[in-house]
Amino acid sequence: MKVGIMGGGQLARMLALAGHRLGVHCLALDPQPDACAAPVAQHIIAAYDDRNALTRLSQASDCVTFEFENVPHGSLQFVAAQAAVYPPLSALAAAQDRLHEKNLFRALGIPTPPFIAVDNCASLAQAVAEIGLPAVLKRRTQGYDGKGQIVLRAASEIEAAWLRLGAVPMIVERFVPFERELSLVVVRGRDLETAFYPLTENLHHDGILRVSWSRPGDALQEFAEDYVRRLLDELKYVGVMAVEFFQVSGGLLANEFAPRVHNSGHWTIEGAETCQFENHMRAILGLPLGSTASVGCAAMVNFIGTLPEIGQVLAIPQTHLHIYGKEAYPGRKLGHVTLWTHDRRALPTRLNQLRALKGGDRARAFRALIS
Amino acid sequence: MKVGIMGGGQLARMLALAGHRLGVHCLALDPQPDACAAPVAQHIIAAYDDRNALTRLSQASDCVTFEFENVPHGSLQFVAAQAAVYPPLSALAAAQDRLHEKNLFRALGIPTPPFIAVDNCASLAQAVAEIGLPAVLKRRTQGYDGKGQIVLRAASEIEAAWLRLGAVPMIVERFVPFERELSLVVVRGRDLETAFYPLTENLHHDGILRVSWSRPGDALQEFAEDYVRRLLDELKYVGVMAVEFFQVSGGLLANEFAPRVHNSGHWTIEGAETCQFENHMRAILGLPLGSTASVGCAAMVNFIGTLPEIGQVLAIPQTHLHIYGKEAYPGRKLGHVTLWTHDRRALPTRLNQLRALKGGDRARAFRALIS
Repeated sequence: MKVGIMGGGQLARMLALAGHRLGVHCLALDPQPDACAAPVAQHIIAAYDDRNALTRLSQASDCVTFEFENVPHGSLQFVAAQAAVYPPLSALAAAQDRLHEKNLFRALGIPTPPFIAVDNCASLAQAVAEIGLPAVLKRRTQGYDGKGQIVLRAASEIEAAWLRLGAVPMIVERFVPFERELSLVVVRGRDLETAFYPLTENLHHDGILRVSWSRPGDALQEFAEDYVRRLLDELKYVGVMAVEFFQVSGGLLANEFAPRVHNSGHWTIEGAETCQFENHMRAILGLPLGSTASVGCAAMVNFIGTLPEIGQVLAIPQTHLHIYGKEAYPGRKLGHVTLWTHDRRALPTRLNQLRALKGGDRARAFRALIS
Repeated sequence: MKVGIMGGGQLARMLALAGHRLGVHCLALDPQPDACAAPVAQHIIAAYDDRNALTRLSQASDCVTFEFENVPHGSLQFVAAQAAVYPPLSALAAAQDRLHEKNLFRALGIPTPPFIAVDNCASLAQAVAEIGLPAVLKRRTQGYDGKGQIVLRAASEIEAAWLRLGAVPMIVERFVPFERELSLVVVRGRDLETAFYPLTENLHHDGILRVSWSRPGDALQEFAEDYVRRLLDELKYVGVMAVEFFQVSGGLLANEFAPRVHNSGHWTIEGAETCQFENHMRAILGLPLGSTASVGCAAMVNFIGTLPEIGQVLAIPQTHLHIYGKEAYPGRKLGHVTLWTHDRRALPTRLNQLRALKGGDRARAFRALIS
């Protein structure tokens, strides 16, 4: 079996590694000659809208998937005319536009922070007056890892923010003083078999995910599953999806969803019976899903911008390293480590050991988890 | 980092997959254009004694290892003049010659079944008279998966067996009516840090391993570790090694050792904190070892000659599939499945479900495990 992937980054790489175990070869279309999935997949070096390349990908694959939201929608439509595409294009379309996404949550009765669509600077000022400060201004499209958004703390900042984000259609949301950031990773098969992973607690810094840890048995699991199930049904979803929530006053507000495998599910490689990557492959190929039950306790720490010396990381007991083989530059996700234990009480010690390694931003990110 | 591997079969494939997680690229030298490691490693298609290819492998690699015992010793000596080779060549030399191997066990005080070296048909007849029947006649070299050996049940079979095995130097051993077949997989780092996996119980049929299952806490663990430690010390060993034992009257007799990752250690991918493949990579690269502690209970079943329909396999709860991407022919190892549970009592049910799938030889192999 062959699976085509739009994108050749670390998510495609980990999908391809999971695929090999199942006897599935991946093809990854990515314009970067050094795409990090290339050593484990057949790499088609081409622009995302190169129709010849898209045809090659479609014709060689039993089905096609994608590893990032910003795949040109037209390209996927072109592929979908020639091959099965999972998750469905409707999910991608919703995730590509924050207004569409938030309206979908609202229509499904999934609570969100209050938001208003804004199309010019005057409507932004009016929306901020309505919503209150602080507020978060977000471009409707092309945002990831905190890019394309600005926190507004004073009315005087509105115009500069509007211009800085490109004076394009945006939404403005109330800034939510959340208790926790949680995400729920779910997988649904072609036959609608559905399996939820335990909730994940996440810690972001500068808009980039830093640390995730599994929360099996969390009191909010059922609430989250109920919301996510509405989304799956509405979108006729197939594959892995991640939905990010803010916990506020003991309830959940949906922030966004990703129609793909997700950084906050990386801990499942060691911490769940079947990881998100294998389950995505199983789902889109029409194979039975694997158990999403957690095994032990896992915490995942991203390496952003720089990599520590790997011998030092591996010297910490129960660390599991994942290096993506990418060239380093600031803000780039270069790898992650999963700390895995039988006993959650051992995690803070391990995290402290990891924190002691070079890399200041990690130290900050760990504080909340350790305290 | 780069690791060169002599051989491009499923062991090289699983080493390469483990390597990618650590950011390590493998190069696999294998004369077969369709070597199953090729999709996940840089494949050097060349004969094992092609000196230009061996030089390319050596110069491109931080260190070189091997995935099978029958690598030409001269080739590895040639490589060792240009690159670090682990495990040491002395271990390979011992494992390549059953007489050398058995003499080594004897010299180290590791019990073995009684054996005698034989160089011609007359000395074989004499040895059989001394050792008694049934006995096992084995070529000293080039044996694997039960090839190169014959069980002698009557004196009248001696001459035919001698000729059938090629009238080359052999050993004849007493046939041991063992209670269990066990193997111990161990890893030792360049700094001599040593970690033992729990004992594995194995079931062979027609000389090929069929089923392995982990035996954490087995009463014989310490005995086995004591014997294996002597071997590691004598050979100044680095890397993963597997030693196969027969359990007889509650004690252990060493059968053979493999200076490499081993089929009876495949269950460690799911059933141990760090699998044998990753630990071999860590060891030979001078990195700290990972924990070899078991996680839950695991049983591994080989797919020999034919593959079942993979959807049927994955429909059995808690199965983990490993397909090697090899062309099918009788007696060939094409893949394996690990059954993993929290609770050993669930294993027989899972095995029965697997047994019910097409493939008669598997049914036979499971009987002992299930009963």
